[in-house]
Amino acid sequence: MAHSMLPKSTRQVKQVGARSCKRFSCKAIATAEKGIGAELYVDAAPGSLLRPGVDSGNSIKAKFEKVIRDAQDSICKSIEDIDGTKFRQDAWTRADGGGGITRVMQDGNVWEKAGVNVSVVYGTMPPEAYRAARGATSAPGSAKDASAGRVPFFAAGISSVMHPKNPFAPTMHFNYRYFETDEWNGLPGQWWFGGGTDITPSYLDEEDMKHFHGAYKKVCDRHDPSYHPRFKQWCDDYFLIQHRGERRGLGGIFFDDLNDKDPETILKFSTDCVNNVVEAYCPLVVKHKDDIFTPENKQWQQLRRGRYVEFNLVYDRGTTFGLKTGGRIESILMSLPLTASWMYDMQPQPGSPEFELLDCCKNPRTWV
Amino acid sequence: MAHSMLPKSTRQVKQVGARSCKRFSCKAIATAEKGIGAELYVDAAPGSLLRPGVDSGNSIKAKFEKVIRDAQDSICKSIEDIDGTKFRQDAWTRADGGGGITRVMQDGNVWEKAGVNVSVVYGTMPPEAYRAARGATSAPGSAKDASAGRVPFFAAGISSVMHPKNPFAPTMHFNYRYFETDEWNGLPGQWWFGGGTDITPSYLDEEDMKHFHGAYKKVCDRHDPSYHPRFKQWCDDYFLIQHRGERRGLGGIFFDDLNDKDPETILKFSTDCVNNVVEAYCPLVVKHKDDIFTPENKQWQQLRRGRYVEFNLVYDRGTTFGLKTGGRIESILMSLPLTASWMYDMQPQPGSPEFELLDCCKNPRTWV
Repeated sequence: MAHSMLPKSTRQVKQVGARSCKRFSCKAIATAEKGIGAELYVDAAPGSLLRPGVDSGNSIKAKFEKVIRDAQDSICKSIEDIDGTKFRQDAWTRADGGGGITRVMQDGNVWEKAGVNVSVVYGTMPPEAYRAARGATSAPGSAKDASAGRVPFFAAGISSVMHPKNPFAPTMHFNYRYFETDEWNGLPGQWWFGGGTDITPSYLDEEDMKHFHGAYKKVCDRHDPSYHPRFKQWCDDYFLIQHRGERRGLGGIFFDDLNDKDPETILKFSTDCVNNVVEAYCPLVVKHKDDIFTPENKQWQQLRRGRYVEFNLVYDRGTTFGLKTGGRIESILMSLPLTASWMYDMQPQPGSPEFELLDCCKNPRTWV
Repeated sequence: MAHSMLPKSTRQVKQVGARSCKRFSCKAIATAEKGIGAELYVDAAPGSLLRPGVDSGNSIKAKFEKVIRDAQDSICKSIEDIDGTKFRQDAWTRADGGGGITRVMQDGNVWEKAGVNVSVVYGTMPPEAYRAARGATSAPGSAKDASAGRVPFFAAGISSVMHPKNPFAPTMHFNYRYFETDEWNGLPGQWWFGGGTDITPSYLDEEDMKHFHGAYKKVCDRHDPSYHPRFKQWCDDYFLIQHRGERRGLGGIFFDDLNDKDPETILKFSTDCVNNVVEAYCPLVVKHKDDIFTPENKQWQQLRRGRYVEFNLVYDRGTTFGLKTGGRIESILMSLPLTASWMYDMQPQPGSPEFELLDCCKNPRTWV
């Protein structure tokens, strides 16, 4: 036996505070190379995660990287101002190009876990990951292409989940991304934008929902009046926990495979979306962060957190894509809450606030 | 707006104990019919879940049903004796035949959640669910069969997960099942047994591991000396959380697609396996249920619970099969712990008991 266990008496006498965690070091360890190459940790995030001398500074890639890097800075600043806690940052690059900057706040004053990640990835993916990323049911080509190797791709995105402590303050998620694939098996390269912002309260506050959905309706309407109805519906469809027949939350907007206008136009729309996260979300948290709550309220929040985990691990396309392409696990699963709970066959009583929230998750409403 | 929210003041003044949950009723609700028909809840479990007048009492189906029903009774009795809490029972049948008996203990004295489920299912499954159930990479036939509709099947099994409260008492899972498919698309019907028992401690106790693995080595050796090395390895391979490069626990035995001897012989082996769960597991819980522990020990247990959730929702074949065939969600997800936690980039320090446990999850050992 190579490792002998510490005597149990040693384990048992150590008394530490619930929030103290000295025995665990938080040094990130490079994961094994899978699809996109190993991570090389760096002390400071480089000015650009693009490939120097290869990617044009005037490309959509470069412009999108600037949008998401700036958004990461400004959103984290707003969250830090409310919480009074600083984000921790981990940055890495990859030898083949690309890299990432993960910012996480854990056990803050207002948020139990908040993460804002930026990543730029160059790599190749198996056709099934390509399908997962596109949400398509078949590879871009005929069946004979299925065995023709891996698809070269570029992906850049910003991704965030914020779980507040107070059960009356909602969780929020957003993700904005840009994809390109190179020419592959004689098929032309493709590009598309995807993203969305969605809200997951444990308790319904109609005014909150009007504010949040109203903010994104305004953003959408500035760009295309058809966007908000389509992307609101898409969001309600996407965040369905199929085996429960309920959504993980109360929606927002979601879009994918968006390439039906010129890329500069869609870039402007994506930029406007990500730049309105703070205005759409933060007032709700400021309003509720000090609400009085009961242990029962907290328990219900924990059960809804459990549903959040179910959606993310079973259905979420971004998570699936990340796990299949060998992305940085700690960044991908940053979205999972600090704590969650599952109780057997828990059904809220009709008429209760918990029942009403669940009803909204089962039967999406029009908020604005 | 069809539902108006209760005034927030009403919500906030309700004070309930952390374990009180009166607002939530625990009435099971029949799920929508998907693959195997809707559940009809019954007050008492019927004597047999087989199809009266169709399935012979002398069939492997009938014998296996008796084995798992008896095992459910005897195992629950042993757990109740240790815990001092009674299991709650939910029983249902389905119009097309089959049904289930779920027994759950929640927030007991020793276990935070323990479930022992028996189910008998007649139905049809899509070829992809058949593949998930078999663990095969292709349907039983050529590619042209893929569009030829659904596969008629019979499945009976007993499934259990037990999560103790004390972080030094291990979680245990077992599942024993018997499958038959009818003739389908000109292919003959098939049958096979599957199952296993595995252990998931948060802290290593070598003596415990020798006892647990030793018990199953003895069972295996009684039937076939090749079984234990093969099924121990299979277990280590199966319970791998691929994206972490670690197993969810410290293994045990696992087998699937077992049909290389006559069914009566394999039935005897499966019976011996399920009838040794109590002897292999319960002494470990009795030994550790009153161990002193720190908040740090509890926190580590919660993180390991999070890994348990990751495995079950992302990789577990039984869960995948259940979700795809429209099984009873509350029974399938009974396996999830009452509480779990995810912390960003948590790495135990080398030399710590937590590090040693993780090392065993990454590099499986030979215990006996």
